[in-house]
Amino acid sequence: MSFLDRIAECRGWEPDDYRPFVIDDMVLGRVPHDLTRRLTDFPKVFDVSGRAVSLVPELSGFAERTNAVAEVLHRLRDAGEIPRWRDEDYPVLRHWGDAPLLTIERAAAPLFGVRAYGVHLNGFVRGPEGLSLWVARRAQNKATAPGKLDHLAAGGQPHGLGVKQNLIKECAEEAGMAPDLAARAVPVGIVSYRCARAEGLRDDVLFCFDLDVPAEFVPKNTDGEVESFALWPLPRVLETIRDGTEFKFNVSLVILDFAVRHGILGPDDPDYEEIVAGLRLAPDAA
Amino acid sequence: MSFLDRIAECRGWEPDDYRPFVIDDMVLGRVPHDLTRRLTDFPKVFDVSGRAVSLVPELSGFAERTNAVAEVLHRLRDAGEIPRWRDEDYPVLRHWGDAPLLTIERAAAPLFGVRAYGVHLNGFVRGPEGLSLWVARRAQNKATAPGKLDHLAAGGQPHGLGVKQNLIKECAEEAGMAPDLAARAVPVGIVSYRCARAEGLRDDVLFCFDLDVPAEFVPKNTDGEVESFALWPLPRVLETIRDGTEFKFNVSLVILDFAVRHGILGPDDPDYEEIVAGLRLAPDAA
Repeated sequence: MSFLDRIAECRGWEPDDYRPFVIDDMVLGRVPHDLTRRLTDFPKVFDVSGRAVSLVPELSGFAERTNAVAEVLHRLRDAGEIPRWRDEDYPVLRHWGDAPLLTIERAAAPLFGVRAYGVHLNGFVRGPEGLSLWVARRAQNKATAPGKLDHLAAGGQPHGLGVKQNLIKECAEEAGMAPDLAARAVPVGIVSYRCARAEGLRDDVLFCFDLDVPAEFVPKNTDGEVESFALWPLPRVLETIRDGTEFKFNVSLVILDFAVRHGILGPDDPDYEEIVAGLRLAPDAA
Repeated sequence: MSFLDRIAECRGWEPDDYRPFVIDDMVLGRVPHDLTRRLTDFPKVFDVSGRAVSLVPELSGFAERTNAVAEVLHRLRDAGEIPRWRDEDYPVLRHWGDAPLLTIERAAAPLFGVRAYGVHLNGFVRGPEGLSLWVARRAQNKATAPGKLDHLAAGGQPHGLGVKQNLIKECAEEAGMAPDLAARAVPVGIVSYRCARAEGLRDDVLFCFDLDVPAEFVPKNTDGEVESFALWPLPRVLETIRDGTEFKFNVSLVILDFAVRHGILGPDDPDYEEIVAGLRLAPDAA
């Protein structure tokens, strides 16, 4: 087993299985063929052709698009076709920082293959023997990746909340961390990937943060999403990532990025170039 | 002016201007059409077709390939067709860590558009007002980028030397730094780009290092390649990068990567996603 296996697991998808999801002549996602067929039932919202699934041009503003798509999604949900409804709005946009073209229910984002954003926190502790990382065990009743190992705090990026604010909120909910400590987290870059998963096509951009956690801090979950926490020496974390899939798939990538940035992996490792290149999609990978 | 301008300057090249340079059915570079025509003069070494420039299959080992290509390159040099000959061997390989297929004179690497590797050192100082970065002014008589601003130490990665060893050597030559200090530099990742420059097609992978430089250290150039050094507050460095091209083109990218990793730039900046994605090529960008 190798770190490259973890990267490969975040890369598998088959373009022929999808049709581009187009708004205003821009590709914003990818819709699988079964959902494409279903969307022909809603011709006032979706213009389905052999080449693309487009929002009809009459839906030209943020509110119009959001409301029209939401109406379709609610009907699909009521028909049992959208599992794990979250009641959380995700922005749909071409580049982070753009005004969103619409928002979409979180559970539908992978169904339409639209890009989703998230925050992940590497909560680390410096010790005499090197770095350790706080590791969470996800609750067994989580909808996705139950029982897998996770970051101290992480979460999706909803519409209308700043990225740092979202991180502070997740730190409070998932790890019981005070806002003034969470605010010390440093943004350190991005990990991104696109892959087919059970929930659909994940096209994710993760904003990564590092936090030098004081030795006296003890995390305490407040939202029931975490079963337990443990502080692991970084070598144990990396061996676990290398040897299997006990860590949630995308958490492995963010921790590999941490190991690269902190010089735990270096260019005299023959896989270094491929590992580093595998942590982000190309800028123009639309 | 914007940081994205610096990234755009490391990205411009036109695929139609080149033919793939192929060894053992693998694309290892890109040869412009005028050099392609010239290489038809050496049919025992290069097999030139309308689609590719290939090494002839009879050249099947490292030494055979290296010697045969070197003989051609020496004849081109003697005819004045390879300026700035360096007498430095660069490895030609598909991925860092692979055994090289051959070595090639450094000055010829951009002529064949083969991937070249290098090391760059962010030498920073922590102060009460934040981070400062050691900045070098390149000598006016340098073959490339005379007078431009540069890192404390940086250089190409020759064949047969470890990456860290190379960095230590460059730190001694360019900044008069003792090996035990240079050895404390931490590998922090990769910046990569492909662009057409005066010297040819640059397809570079830069191994980046950070060094927390002690306040008492004063750099002293020993090889005549640096005119002067100065310690600049990071905001001044970033403003200079944003507003123009006083920094050498690839140094700007490595410093932007530094700013991202140290949280000077963050996800609440609307250009963040594009800046971060622009610092590396895609893994499969052959």
